[in-house]
Formats: sequence, structure tokens, C-alpha cells
Amino acid sequence: MVPAGEPTESTVTLLGQRLSGGDTIVDGGNSNFHDDVRRAAALSGRGIHYLDAGTSGGIWGLEQGYCLMVGGDAEACRRLEPIFNSLAPPKGYLRVGESGSGHYVKMIHNGIEYGLMQAYAEGFELMHASAYKIDLAKVAALWMQGSVVRSWLLDLTARALAADGELAALKGYVEDSGEGRWTLHEAIDRGVPLPAITAALLTRFRSREDNPFGERLLAALRQQFGGHAVKTTDETPASAR
Amino acid sequence: MVPAGEPTESTVTLLGQRLSGGDTIVDGGNSNFHDDVRRAAALSGRGIHYLDAGTSGGIWGLEQGYCLMVGGDAEACRRLEPIFNSLAPPKGYLRVGESGSGHYVKMIHNGIEYGLMQAYAEGFELMHASAYKIDLAKVAALWMQGSVVRSWLLDLTARALAADGELAALKGYVEDSGEGRWTLHEAIDRGVPLPAITAALLTRFRSREDNPFGERLLAALRQQFGGHAVKTTDETPASAR
Amino acid sequence: MVPAGEPTESTVTLLGQRLSGGDTIVDGGNSNFHDDVRRAAALSGRGIHYLDAGTSGGIWGLEQGYCLMVGGDAEACRRLEPIFNSLAPPKGYLRVGESGSGHYVKMIHNGIEYGLMQAYAEGFELMHASAYKIDLAKVAALWMQGSVVRSWLLDLTARALAADGELAALKGYVEDSGEGRWTLHEAIDRGVPLPAITAALLTRFRSREDNPFGERLLAALRQQFGGHAVKTTDETPASAR
Amino acid sequence: MVPAGEPTESTVTLLGQRLSGGDTIVDGGNSNFHDDVRRAAALSGRGIHYLDAGTSGGIWGLEQGYCLMVGGDAEACRRLEPIFNSLAPPKGYLRVGESGSGHYVKMIHNGIEYGLMQAYAEGFELMHASAYKIDLAKVAALWMQGSVVRSWLLDLTARALAADGELAALKGYVEDSGEGRWTLHEAIDRGVPLPAITAALLTRFRSREDNPFGERLLAALRQQFGGHAVKTTDETPASAR
Repeated sequence: MVPAGEPTESTVTLLGQRLSGGDTIVDGGNSNFHDDVRRAAALSGRGIHYLDAGTSGGIWGLEQGYCLMVGGDAEACRRLEPIFNSLAPPKGYLRVGESGSGHYVKMIHNGIEYGLMQAYAEGFELMHASAYKIDLAKVAALWMQGSVVRSWLLDLTARALAADGELAALKGYVEDSGEGRWTLHEAIDRGVPLPAITAALLTRFRSREDNPFGERLLAALRQQFGGHAVKTTDETPASAR
Repeated sequence: MVPAGEPTESTVTLLGQRLSGGDTIVDGGNSNFHDDVRRAAALSGRGIHYLDAGTSGGIWGLEQGYCLMVGGDAEACRRLEPIFNSLAPPKGYLRVGESGSGHYVKMIHNGIEYGLMQAYAEGFELMHASAYKIDLAKVAALWMQGSVVRSWLLDLTARALAADGELAALKGYVEDSGEGRWTLHEAIDRGVPLPAITAALLTRFRSREDNPFGERLLAALRQQFGGHAVKTTDETPASAR
Repeated sequence: MVPAGEPTESTVTLLGQRLSGGDTIVDGGNSNFHDDVRRAAALSGRGIHYLDAGTSGGIWGLEQGYCLMVGGDAEACRRLEPIFNSLAPPKGYLRVGESGSGHYVKMIHNGIEYGLMQAYAEGFELMHASAYKIDLAKVAALWMQGSVVRSWLLDLTARALAADGELAALKGYVEDSGEGRWTLHEAIDRGVPLPAITAALLTRFRSREDNPFGERLLAALRQQFGGHAVKTTDETPASAR
Repeated sequence: MVPAGEPTESTVTLLGQRLSGGDTIVDGGNSNFHDDVRRAAALSGRGIHYLDAGTSGGIWGLEQGYCLMVGGDAEACRRLEPIFNSLAPPKGYLRVGESGSGHYVKMIHNGIEYGLMQAYAEGFELMHASAYKIDLAKVAALWMQGSVVRSWLLDLTARALAADGELAALKGYVEDSGEGRWTLHEAIDRGVPLPAITAALLTRFRSREDNPFGERLLAALRQQFGGHAVKTTDETPASAR
């Protein structure tokens, strides 16, 4: 379980040099599935197995177990099953298929995760903007009792809002760790429309922008054709041309 | 619990004529919150209370209880609390606020529901289109074991896919019962961006179209400027002008 | 040509009281088409005609003429045609159809306008973010020479960028004057998917938000499940729980 | 001007073997800018220049000229300027910057083109679905007279609709030739939100699907939690479980 990218790459290379036929490397990080396919092929020439294991459960996995999606050689998987089964909760391990499929399914899991988070974020933002004064923490807790939208992410929403219903101290600067982007790259490559997951990713991009160029151009255009007033960066409305 | 719209309207009107001061009407259907506000105001002149109660839990509510979001006069709510508490699961009842707020929160619940469903649908569609042969029913069941995306809707996804992993008999014709539209109308009125929930609603609209005019126009335009071939409704490619 | 909403409403009411049978009111502003239908019906009882005239051309219309889309009684339109034709450029006047249709077509014109502006804004933002150092003003001017994307809005883009290629003084705070919202309301009512026009409207909404609640909730959720660091409003990264 | 991909790759390789120092290859097709950078670097070792020239104007370029965006060595560009200037309309040639920048700007041009086309397609689809009976060809022609949305693409829209206002013979199956996908890949790599251009691309993807799996899953889920009726592929409504 090494960070994806260069650290995993160099570690796998190093291990590949020292291991021998019949040994197995398990990449339990978040590698891109294309890298898995390449690495597994490179190592297979020397009889070394490479398994890609995606995990989900977040930092709660330590207590609750985390589910495991594994790709790679079926026999190598079978041999390591006792390890996977002891790490995962009951029925929480699956060999998905060939090399890369474990991280592939994990990648899509994260794409879905982005979409689910976005759906809650939008709904709570609208309630927050409502003319009604709604106790969002109470609503989140309520919906955990039998509603259609109950989920673990809603439970975490209820926790976060119980701690501070206004989230007043937070800056809405939303990072992404890459799997959402890969999900979209893959969707584009396959011609599959993912509008909600895409909306979630683009919202994160936008959250990290400050006074984006495109929005400045929109304001400039409105001024150009309609003579509409614009705001300037020093907040003083600039009159139209 | 009468269907929203005309049936509720006429029922409330009729009841309003027969009830007397201190009586309470509970609209347990899916009325639009603007109608609740209007009805409550109209009835209050004669001392009749009108409570709007949103419910969630689907057809499973019968066994599992369904959660209740209620709007309207606080005292009237308090008097009926024993009823609400016996219908809802433990901690599954909340008076949200003034008239309309129960259905308002239910409306947004449904907007979120659209977004969650869409996120799963997109992720599973991409896995279905993948170069890997992925057992979607197994993945859905796996993710219920400790993953970040576990939820009741995922549980239902697992059920649906266990019954038929290809959903081969189904037509992807997706209805909507109105609350998603109202959520978006309200978001537009308040200037709140809801891109993922909107994407979910528009996907449903698109699912009900057959050879939409806009897409025909896109094909026509590509032919106009690029001389690209188009397909005709009888499936024979028409050569460019 | 009175501002839409209350000013138009009271003006029409007042005029309606003073005019007599056979007279015609032309609403040359930007009324919602539903209001046109209502007003035309109310006035028709007294034999007064009400025409709804949408215009497009912006502040440039004074020099270049502006195109006119008119709805309402065919005979009343015909009688006023000389006026319309002298205001509009050649072939720049059309009676679209019954009451409301003039403003309806104008409303959709504006929805399209939002989408066009957004497409340019996105493309120029990406070029601005590119690893290449691209002279955006020159590109905009170039594309006016025979490219597929040439348009009047691109011409205005070239003007705005020629004045300041960085748009450095501007704040990307983008207003909307209502027709875009109406376009979307109408699309929802008719179940027609308009994803790009919607994206344009939601981008404007987002441009006016500062540290939106939804994005704060996304950051809070990432911290909850992943222990990811968040930023606080005083810009100091807060470590995870 | 060879088709992008393998044909260009093998042609450039072949030419590179036969040309000598000081010679220049111009790729006037639609290569991905990453390929340009790679090819230019590979050829520069032997003193051969490689210029990437994006063109826009469609099949109309023959009569009207097409605009040219060129990337690569400044001196090599200067030497070939007479050629570029005679192909392009006046002021229709620009050296954008280093290798790849010509095709980069062309790529984004096409992304914008997708967005513009989509905006028109959506607006005309909504007018087509309207309760008013609107003559779309007349509206398109009208808007060419002084309106804010006038453009070359609108002119083509007017032509297409004049030929058949219903586009009745067409199938709305919309291809894409790759640059839109590349635009989105690049935007994801740079973290730039392009919601409208993305919507345009996803609409094309969706236009090529038939009864997509994701929409079938949405229908299945509605049946699961709400007992809603579904349609089956043989069009007979299947009752709920």
C-alpha cells in the first residue's frame, strides 16, 4: 500500500528485481488500471504475479474492515485469499477479473462516490438557501431512519452537520485524488455519458478557482452587447462602455 | 394520503367545508410546498390546521416504517405527535418548520434521490461497457460490505442485478413523479446551482425521447459544414450534399 | 418598452383603462410569455389588442437595427407592420404566432445566447490555462476569418480581448436577466433536456456564490471518511480529525 | 493533409526518412497536439521541421478560404508564410506558438463548436416541442438579421431547416471526430471545468446508444423501491413486483 504514481512504480520495479518466480506483488494502493496491466505483463515474463487490489472504507476501515476488489491471475488470487478474507469484512472480498480489474472497479467506485457526495451537497445547499429555516443536522439524522436516501455517506453528513450545522469554519476547497478523473477519461474513451459524475468532478475543479477567466469573459461579453454593468476586482461596479 | 394535484385539492376543499375550528387536516401525499402554504393560509382563517407531511421509504415502509417530515403549526403538530411517532420508525419523525416545510424537505429528498440513483446508474453502465467482463451483481453486493458507497439504494441495485445481471427485459424508460422538477424549479428561483441533480432529471427526460429533434439538428449541421454522412430513419446512410 | 414585471404590468393596466376597441398595445420589453397570454386575454374582452414583441441586437441595435419577433393577433400585427419593418433591419421582422409567441421565441433566443457565450468562455478559459502561451485576442480575431465558430458573439469576444487580453480588471460575477431561467422552467415543464443551456445558467449562479455551502459540505465529507485535510476560511489548513 | 492517427504517423515517419536538414513537414490534418510535440522533437534531431496546422472552415473552405492556426518553429513558419497566406482568407493565418499549439487551438475550436451546435440544437428542440406552432426555418433566418445569436452555424441551421423544417428523414445519430474528446481530456488534466462543452459531447455519446444499461437500471430501481411500473423491451408495461 504505497501512494500511487512514482512511489508505487519504483517500489514495484525494485521488488521485481528481487523476487523470483511464483512470488506475488499486491498493489493495494490506488494505481491507474492501465499501469496495472503494463506492470503485470512485464513481471509475468519472469513468473512473478502482480495483483491489483482496490480497497474502500476510508479511515474507518481499521475498525469496520474495508472491502477489497482484486484483479489479476486467478490462481495467485486464490493462494492469497486467506489474507484478503482476514482484511475484509465477511463477503467483503471479490476477485473481479484479469489484471487491472480490481483498480478499475475501485476507480468507478470512486466516480460513483463523487456523484453521491455531490447529490447530497446540492440538496443540503438548497435547503440551506431556502426561505425556511431548516435544521440540516436534524434532517440528515432523520433521513437515516428508513428514508430512500439513507447511506453511509448520509450518516457522515449527519455527523459533520451535528458538529457544526453551518460548517462555518470550512473553506469549500475540494480536492480530488485522481480516480474521478480517470473514471471520466475512461468514459470518454468508451463513449459512455456520465453527466452526474462529471458534474461532481467539475464542481470540484470550480471550487478551486478564484475569479475564473471564463466567468470574467462572460461578464465582459454581457457588457459588450448589452451595456450591462460589470464588477471589478476592487469590487467597484464599473459602468458600461 | 391522496394523490397530489387535483385529488388533494378537491379533498382539502371538501374537508375544509365540513371541519370546524381546532380540527387538523394532514396532507400525507406529495403536494408542492407552494400549495401547502396557500391551503394552510386559507384554512387558518377558519381555525382549521393544515399539516404537510412528507414520507420516505417507498413500498418498503409498510414493514420497515417510513420517515416523516412535517410542516405546519407547532401546536397542531405536537397534538398529533403520537400518530406520527407510531407510523415512523424510532427517531423517524421531525417537525421541520412552518407550513410547506415538510413537503419542501421531502421534495429535496427526492431531488437527492434522483442524483444518487443517477450516480449508481452511470457507474454501473461504465462497468457494463468495460473491456473487462465484470459481474455487476457481485460488485454491487461486495460494495455493501464496508465500502464508502454503501446505501439502501445500492442494496436495491444488488437485488435488481441479482435477479437479472443484464436487465435484459427492461426498457430504459424512466418516469419522474414531479418532485425532481420542483427541486429544480426552486433551485432556479433561488439561483442555486444543482448540476448533478439536474443531470439526473435531464437523463430521465432524454430516456423518454425517441430520435429527438435536437440530435437530428446536430446531425444535419455536421452534414452542412463538414459534409459528414448522416443516418436516415430507415437506417440507410444518406450521403452528404 | 418598459422593464418587465411590475412596471410593464401597471403600464398595461393603465393603458388598458384608457384605450378603446381596436387600439393596440405593443409590449416591446422582455415579459414572460405566460403574462402575455393572460394580458392579451384580459384586454381582448374590450376589443383591445396586445402584441408581444421580443427584440434582439443589444445596444448595437440603434445603429444596426434589431430583429423583431412578434406574437398576437394576425390582423393587429399586419396593421403595425410598417412600424416593425422600419425598426427592424431588412427581413428582420417576423410574426411568430399567437399571443406570447414573440416573447417565447425571444426567451429561447436568450437561452441559446447563454449557451453560446458559455461555449466561448469555456474554450478561452482552457486556452488561458494551457501550457502554451496563447494570444487569445489574436485567436479570437483569427477565428472570425472563415472558421466554423465565427459569430457576432465571437466578434465581441475579440473586441473585449483586444482591449485587455487578461480581462484583469474584471470580476467574474455574471448576472442573468431572467429569460435563461424561464427557458429552463419551460424545458422542465415540457420534459425537454437542455444540458448545455442549463450548464450556462448554473455557471452564472455559481459565479455569484462565495464559498458555497455545498462545497463546504463536500470538503467536510472528504475529511469525515478519508481523513483528508481541509482548508478553513482563514486559509490555514486544518488537520483532519 | 492526411487523416489523423496511423495514416499521419506512418506518412510522417516515411517522409522523415527521406527528407533532409532544413526541410519542413506540415501536418495539415487533425493530429492530437501530444503527437505533434513528440514528432517535432523526433525530427528536430535531424534538422527537419515539423509544423502542425489546424484548419477550420469545413467543406466551404474551398470557396471561402479556411482559417489556419499553425504551431512550430518560428523561422520555419515564416518561410512558409506565403503558402499559408494564399490558402487562408485575409488575416486568416496565425502562428500560435511552439509545436502542437496549432492543433491545440484547433482542438479547442472544435470543443467550442460542439458547444455552439448544442446550444442551437437545444433551443430549436424546445421551440419544436412548444405549444406554439413555430416555423423554425423562419425563426433561424430571422435571427440572422441583427440578433445577438447570429453566426455561421445559425446560417447553416437556417439552410438545413429551409430544406426540411422537420428534419424528418434524419436519424439523430451524432458522430464525433475526436477533437471534442481531446478537449475534455485536456480540461480534466488541467482541472478546468467545461460543463457546456462536456454536455455537448455527452449528448453525442447518448445519441448513439440504444436502450442504455444505465437507464434500464434507473427503471429497475424505481420499480424496486417504489413499485413503479416499468416498460419492457417488447413495449408491454410489466407490472411491479
